[in-house]
Amino acid sequence: MRILFFGDVYGRTGREVLARRLGPLVKETGAHAVIVNGENAAGGKGITAQMCREIFALGVDVITLGNHAWDKREIATYIDEEPRVIRPLNYPPGTPGGGSCVVRKDGRPGLAVVQVQGRVFSPQLLEDPFRAVEEEVERLRQSTSIIIVDCHADATSEKQALGWFLDGQVSAVVGTHTHVQTADEVILPGGTAYITDVGMCGPWVSVIGAERELAVERFMTQLPVRLEAATGPAILSAVLIEVDDETGRATGIQRILEREVATEPLASLFGRW
Amino acid sequence: MRILFFGDVYGRTGREVLARRLGPLVKETGAHAVIVNGENAAGGKGITAQMCREIFALGVDVITLGNHAWDKREIATYIDEEPRVIRPLNYPPGTPGGGSCVVRKDGRPGLAVVQVQGRVFSPQLLEDPFRAVEEEVERLRQSTSIIIVDCHADATSEKQALGWFLDGQVSAVVGTHTHVQTADEVILPGGTAYITDVGMCGPWVSVIGAERELAVERFMTQLPVRLEAATGPAILSAVLIEVDDETGRATGIQRILEREVATEPLASLFGRW
Amino acid sequence: MRILFFGDVYGRTGREVLARRLGPLVKETGAHAVIVNGENAAGGKGITAQMCREIFALGVDVITLGNHAWDKREIATYIDEEPRVIRPLNYPPGTPGGGSCVVRKDGRPGLAVVQVQGRVFSPQLLEDPFRAVEEEVERLRQSTSIIIVDCHADATSEKQALGWFLDGQVSAVVGTHTHVQTADEVILPGGTAYITDVGMCGPWVSVIGAERELAVERFMTQLPVRLEAATGPAILSAVLIEVDDETGRATGIQRILEREVATEPLASLFGRW
Amino acid sequence: MRILFFGDVYGRTGREVLARRLGPLVKETGAHAVIVNGENAAGGKGITAQMCREIFALGVDVITLGNHAWDKREIATYIDEEPRVIRPLNYPPGTPGGGSCVVRKDGRPGLAVVQVQGRVFSPQLLEDPFRAVEEEVERLRQSTSIIIVDCHADATSEKQALGWFLDGQVSAVVGTHTHVQTADEVILPGGTAYITDVGMCGPWVSVIGAERELAVERFMTQLPVRLEAATGPAILSAVLIEVDDETGRATGIQRILEREVATEPLASLFGRW
Ligand SMILES: [Fe+2]
Ligand SMILES: [Fe+2]
Ligand SMILES: [Fe+2]
Ligand SMILES: [Fe+2]
Ligand SMILES: [Fe+2]
Ligand SMILES: [Fe+2]
Ligand SMILES: [Fe+2]
Ligand SMILES: [Fe+2]
Repeated sequence: MRILFFGDVYGRTGREVLARRLGPLVKETGAHAVIVNGENAAGGKGITAQMCREIFALGVDVITLGNHAWDKREIATYIDEEPRVIRPLNYPPGTPGGGSCVVRKDGRPGLAVVQVQGRVFSPQLLEDPFRAVEEEVERLRQSTSIIIVDCHADATSEKQALGWFLDGQVSAVVGTHTHVQTADEVILPGGTAYITDVGMCGPWVSVIGAERELAVERFMTQLPVRLEAATGPAILSAVLIEVDDETGRATGIQRILEREVATEPLASLFGRW
Repeated sequence: MRILFFGDVYGRTGREVLARRLGPLVKETGAHAVIVNGENAAGGKGITAQMCREIFALGVDVITLGNHAWDKREIATYIDEEPRVIRPLNYPPGTPGGGSCVVRKDGRPGLAVVQVQGRVFSPQLLEDPFRAVEEEVERLRQSTSIIIVDCHADATSEKQALGWFLDGQVSAVVGTHTHVQTADEVILPGGTAYITDVGMCGPWVSVIGAERELAVERFMTQLPVRLEAATGPAILSAVLIEVDDETGRATGIQRILEREVATEPLASLFGRW
Repeated sequence: MRILFFGDVYGRTGREVLARRLGPLVKETGAHAVIVNGENAAGGKGITAQMCREIFALGVDVITLGNHAWDKREIATYIDEEPRVIRPLNYPPGTPGGGSCVVRKDGRPGLAVVQVQGRVFSPQLLEDPFRAVEEEVERLRQSTSIIIVDCHADATSEKQALGWFLDGQVSAVVGTHTHVQTADEVILPGGTAYITDVGMCGPWVSVIGAERELAVERFMTQLPVRLEAATGPAILSAVLIEVDDETGRATGIQRILEREVATEPLASLFGRW
Repeated sequence: MRILFFGDVYGRTGREVLARRLGPLVKETGAHAVIVNGENAAGGKGITAQMCREIFALGVDVITLGNHAWDKREIATYIDEEPRVIRPLNYPPGTPGGGSCVVRKDGRPGLAVVQVQGRVFSPQLLEDPFRAVEEEVERLRQSTSIIIVDCHADATSEKQALGWFLDGQVSAVVGTHTHVQTADEVILPGGTAYITDVGMCGPWVSVIGAERELAVERFMTQLPVRLEAATGPAILSAVLIEVDDETGRATGIQRILEREVATEPLASLFGRW
């Protein structure tokens, strides 16, 4: 089974590049299932129900979220009706929605997707992602051996620790949240595909999706400058994971990184330079 | 001018893989200068004067440090005698050593190297890296137009903001500190080569260099478990930056990532799995 | 000279208790000058120009702010026109307003007020408060020896360190920001009055000013629950500092803490209990 | 029942002032039980088994710890043998020791003591203190209605939220960890005594217990300066809680703060001033 996982979709630019490239990439890679991290789809801050529907309409099977899950209020209702949208598992009891789901595609074995959020540098105070995912994986393994874990976290240490922790227990551990693709994709000795971060689908002439001028201004003034989604050429970041249907072991992981060329002189976008 | 930049050298494994591969890589790439981040050379925690000397003896021109700069006390003395070892520029006035240096190789124009440390999630409380580097770059540009900035930081947002901020002002902004190479190398529109993180030179069967079991234990117990440098096969992470000698503009940036194959069954290294 | 310093005024309840009690307290204590921390006057988030005017109209001489300084946008303009409103000194160059001011009351020596913001756990990334205040105090001492420093910070360690650092250099170091008065008022051996935190003027049936139910809900759900200013009985927190006009040395510091009795059954305010 | 609670005992100075003053204070107040926070007894960093024994020998009934619990390794063994030493309840499963205990004094009803650690700004990543304490309190109430909760935390918001959360469920919520006594002691409307922080027993010419020069140096250099316990005159910080034996409701809470006078000129202790 081949699974495409797209990193954090950011704003209109991210949604559009996903819409444009998802179909061709599914065809080229022969992917059987598609997972998308959508926590920044709505201008960088959360995602609406309508956007989820549009993303599913592209042929996406599961949408994962993250620390921005609740930026758009309506998602708290929608997530309870749509099990294919998941938020990090390790939120407190009573949190809307769930932290995992299993989808089944035409005669293939079930595909389980779990998301956990790291705690190091996290804006939220959450439960232990290690114990949470360990228990959930044990439960999910009773219905399928193909399990993809989205580790939404900042610190490379926490992500690598989780990767090793789950090696041999799941098909893949893929990181999200930093909006920058890492080059460390690997199949760990136990058979788990791993990458520290898949990266972003969104405007690359930006600071992790937001307007460069505003982001730099915020850093340099420390005033509450309101960030806005950048525009301009897109970057598309994904990984293709290949899994043995019988055993759930990964047999391949391949990075996909497409950076659109700017059609207008970029230098002019940023006043000072 | 071609410059090789090696990411955080971690422990014995890191020092050894650097010693083994630096020569061949210089030959293959035709590099004219070599920069190494050495903040984790001594078992993950700092670097000794002797290790600096050994690294220079390999043909390295400049060693940069980072938040681990002072883990080995003796460096505070050594750094005042050896200008080719630099620590982040934005430490308070009176900090031992300097935050930049200029080296000159056989008839070529000077090569300036600057290091700044990010403040987001930083264990130290430092001065503004944007203003600090802006001023330093202006100063350095009076003696050379080839300037490499090592941005030692956690947050991808801060690193990208600094990259855009310096675009057109320096030859390259390369990130260090996370120990994971990113796949976003690019020449920004103003002519500055950029990568969010160069990655680590050290043991890859590890949690950013440290023993996996200990790191996982620390995350799961929250006890003060003492981390130790891992052993086993090495990963080597570097970038090759090509710069126009006249203008200082980057003409190329290329990632180098070598992951040694394990010669013993790795799965057995980690008890549980 | 006797100076009254009122801690963080929070929301309508805080503004009202200040309006009600300031006059009587000035009379009782014979205070010659009044300083108020106003960063939470507007529903807990910043302060408006109109609120500043109303507070000055009560007989207040200087308003200090803090990390919430810019929550109401208009203050960024107003602070440039009204030097008696000050924000933390250690914001970056170019920040609206100033970090200190000197007021002069009928024939008495000038009273200088400085504010710095701590960096430990701070939501903003700021310059070193120690060096910033040291330099400012040196400058201010040329025009007066009566200097009050408002240290707006979270960590008791940073506040105490600043207190000792300035002992003998200023008349008083008083803390703000935590919204809880501390009981450690003292005159340090060098002659500087010190208290770790003056405390809050606002609704005490609250979580540092905000509605209890919402604050507890936010802690327990980790969802972006919007906090609102609480209502109900007020607490008023202040200190009276007595300073020798000649030397600027403090001769006394006295806590003032008034907790209004609830006129309705409080237990009923919080659903569960 | 009257219970004396002493805040964080820091170093030799703290142990000595406790030894000197505990007996007299028990006599003066007629206290029936004594609780001591001991996390900093060993030079500021943890506590040894021998120190625990000495503190118990003074007539102390329960020792609570905190984030420094494990600084001295041996405590991890000792705490499993000595149930009267407790660490924060909300550490992960498998942590040595327990988070609560019940002691019974000559014919009186049982006294339960629970400790939780806050998560805001915490160096450890812990489980939700609200749910943890809620469950534990429910369990403890089956054996006694006299329950004292030590909330070891930094943020005043988290401590106040926990106080309100437990109001009516426990006899008292007393804060520790900041080393500064707060002046907000109160009996909440539901009958729970509350104070944000009890404060420290240790050397007051210090930065929360450590040598002033070293602490200031660390703030101003951001180098890994090793802190040492200060010496000189002591401060003793405690609260006396009065509880109705039948109902467990608090009927009184009274702060105790004793600051020893310096017998030598203090100003000379700190070089610069
Ligand atoms: Fe994201
Ligand atoms: Fe995120
Ligand atoms: Fe580092
Ligand atoms: Fe490093
Ligand atoms: Fe504040
Ligand atoms: Fe405040
Ligand atoms: Fe503590
Ligand atoms: Fe403590």
